[in-house]
Amino acid sequence: MQKVDLLLHAKWLITCEEQNRILENHSLAVKDGNIVGIMPCKEAEKTWQSDNVQHFNEHALLPGFINSHTHIAMNIFRGLADDLDLMDWLNNYIWPAEGKWVSQELVYDASQLAIAEMIRGGTVRFNDMYFFPEATAKAAVEAGIHAHVGMTIIDVPTAWAKTPDEYFAKSLEFYEQFKNHKHVTPKFAPHSTYTVSRENLIKVNELAQEHGIKINIHLQEVASEAQQTMAKYNLRPLELLADIGMVSPNLIAVHMTDISKNDFAILQKYRPNIVHCPESNMKLASGTCPVTRLLRDNINVALGTDGAASNNDLDMIGEMRTAAFLGKHSAGDPKALPAETVLKMATLHGAKTLGTDKITGSLTAGKLADIIAINLTEIETQPLYHPASQIVYAASRNQVTDVWISGKQVLKDRKLLTLDEKELLNKAQSWRNKIKS
Amino acid sequence: MQKVDLLLHAKWLITCEEQNRILENHSLAVKDGNIVGIMPCKEAEKTWQSDNVQHFNEHALLPGFINSHTHIAMNIFRGLADDLDLMDWLNNYIWPAEGKWVSQELVYDASQLAIAEMIRGGTVRFNDMYFFPEATAKAAVEAGIHAHVGMTIIDVPTAWAKTPDEYFAKSLEFYEQFKNHKHVTPKFAPHSTYTVSRENLIKVNELAQEHGIKINIHLQEVASEAQQTMAKYNLRPLELLADIGMVSPNLIAVHMTDISKNDFAILQKYRPNIVHCPESNMKLASGTCPVTRLLRDNINVALGTDGAASNNDLDMIGEMRTAAFLGKHSAGDPKALPAETVLKMATLHGAKTLGTDKITGSLTAGKLADIIAINLTEIETQPLYHPASQIVYAASRNQVTDVWISGKQVLKDRKLLTLDEKELLNKAQSWRNKIKS
Repeated sequence: MQKVDLLLHAKWLITCEEQNRILENHSLAVKDGNIVGIMPCKEAEKTWQSDNVQHFNEHALLPGFINSHTHIAMNIFRGLADDLDLMDWLNNYIWPAEGKWVSQELVYDASQLAIAEMIRGGTVRFNDMYFFPEATAKAAVEAGIHAHVGMTIIDVPTAWAKTPDEYFAKSLEFYEQFKNHKHVTPKFAPHSTYTVSRENLIKVNELAQEHGIKINIHLQEVASEAQQTMAKYNLRPLELLADIGMVSPNLIAVHMTDISKNDFAILQKYRPNIVHCPESNMKLASGTCPVTRLLRDNINVALGTDGAASNNDLDMIGEMRTAAFLGKHSAGDPKALPAETVLKMATLHGAKTLGTDKITGSLTAGKLADIIAINLTEIETQPLYHPASQIVYAASRNQVTDVWISGKQVLKDRKLLTLDEKELLNKAQSWRNKIKS
Repeated sequence: MQKVDLLLHAKWLITCEEQNRILENHSLAVKDGNIVGIMPCKEAEKTWQSDNVQHFNEHALLPGFINSHTHIAMNIFRGLADDLDLMDWLNNYIWPAEGKWVSQELVYDASQLAIAEMIRGGTVRFNDMYFFPEATAKAAVEAGIHAHVGMTIIDVPTAWAKTPDEYFAKSLEFYEQFKNHKHVTPKFAPHSTYTVSRENLIKVNELAQEHGIKINIHLQEVASEAQQTMAKYNLRPLELLADIGMVSPNLIAVHMTDISKNDFAILQKYRPNIVHCPESNMKLASGTCPVTRLLRDNINVALGTDGAASNNDLDMIGEMRTAAFLGKHSAGDPKALPAETVLKMATLHGAKTLGTDKITGSLTAGKLADIIAINLTEIETQPLYHPASQIVYAASRNQVTDVWISGKQVLKDRKLLTLDEKELLNKAQSWRNKIKS
């Protein structure tokens, strides 16, 4: 008998590997934060022993979700203003609120609130873009969640930095502080081609290549972006990035609703990662990322919720469902984006996007024990014929009961173990009262 | 002091009247199953007294949701087959399963399961179309939910009836049994223009006019329907119904994704009710109902989940969110279908569709006490700036904590009071084992 730290027995186990396996009555063992192996329960009982054995007779175990694009601290502005034109929303609500309130303290509190929501919804890793990255990193480390924290570069002054030079200096300072951290991965986050000059995009690219840092950018979210870069550079945004050598598997291009024939050729040649944010794209009427076409071309497409100020949640189960719905709707084909594909977009494809698929994104021996349990014995998910289908099309976020990150349990039977829910609710109400006034 | 049966004090109260009001710190009194009145908590405490006083300090009270189109007993086939072409799904999965298993007993058990899901999600009234209507009616009456039960007419034999004559005979028998029932309203449900002959549609219409029965039909769900009726009658489906005099405010036309210029003229002239089922339409890639255009023309549009075998739930909060997303996406306008509009589609517009807006669909003195409470103090719905927006864009079905139907409490702090949850789960698993085998 091999001694392990944690032994999980499950009714269902969905691996989300490239060749997905849906296993019944299987067990998973964890040691030193990693998955040791997976085998049928009966064999597992003869192979492994542990002081921490947990039974999930009504649950499916899955790899935790990876939210590949978000602005978590914007949770504090959730629902402040909805049903508005983008520029009205930004100019008259979000930017004034951010200008007045965004600070180290706000970003820390708001990040905690968002991390609590993410863990409660089964997210174990997120890819963020906002200001005061050290506040988000601190909140993530304390809560035990994996964070890919954006070092934002933008040519307009904010509370975090006033000039491009200051953005770069603060970014490199953050990078030095966290470059070898177990839970935090710094990455560059130039905001977009319409808010960052060509000169600064080149600088980002040079620094990224020098240090081996990933680059994350909002790209071709709406058709008007291309009009702007065409007028300025006679290039579409993706063409501009290709022109300066930024388009590669190291690039994370978020949204990509507007893709020309030449854009497809660039994507096929340089193979960046795309992040699809269907709920944000629908709610803001931005357009539709052609996910089915991209996947057919073997372009990696992951899933993100975008920020909760626009979206209005960080719910990856909901986002998978909307991705499947929108995929079928836009392709005119009910077979498009089936349940198992969107499950992989929310897990393994996210890990690939962040360059971490060797260590996470699926239930595979040797990978980190980033695991969630979803209870499928609720009225809303019965009867149960196909667990993957049930999770995508019928389950809701509150059916996530347990979450482990690197083998450490952070949610147990719906209770947060690394965050104080009551304190967070008090903080939320306190910020709300200030911002609303 | 006036003695009332029930006195509810709430943090928020959303009336969903035509001129919606969002009230803070208000109370609602109930007597003999009806709403007596609404007033600020401080006044209410001096006006009403009751042996049953309940406080909802973290909640919004709303009128219960009205699911204006569903096939509730199909819950038993939820997730049996997904991600398939419609005809493959019907011919190879649903119709064989229905042919083998649908019976009085299945419809009763499956209706109970679905009613439990509906009550847990805040639905107080539903408009159904299936077979063995007496089994659905029995389950509804026992659970205390309002049911508009379809008397299905279809030109193909099923377990319920073999010939059109038998369908009509059984329908009229059901009508006689329930025509004056407090909780059950029989209505005609000819399946569609491609499964019911012109002759039988005329017969439905005559009987409906004779007895004052509403008519509910799937109409122009996909573009191919019009090709079929054009080939047969040289009329589009809606034109065919107009031709036989069936199009009126008495008609409930479900789906309507495919609307021609002449169809719009017919809708404007005869003013039937439309039921929008956005999740079904997206998942089956059926097309998009032009809701914004219809509402601009003052055509009544309600909301339905469709059956859970295709959809895959009976969650009206989720359906509202998808309706808002799809409305903005299809109109290319983030201002389209705002939160308060979809809330009304899910309540007052549903009541209008079913001809019951005089007695339900909003929190209004004199109407039935069909009321739900939604807890907004969860991590996922904090901070809270606008309750209506938060319910549509951030809340989930499990935040519905309490439900009253005609003043009788049927859900209390998430516990079903008129249904045995454990027994239902056993029934679901028992049916699943039979059907799966």
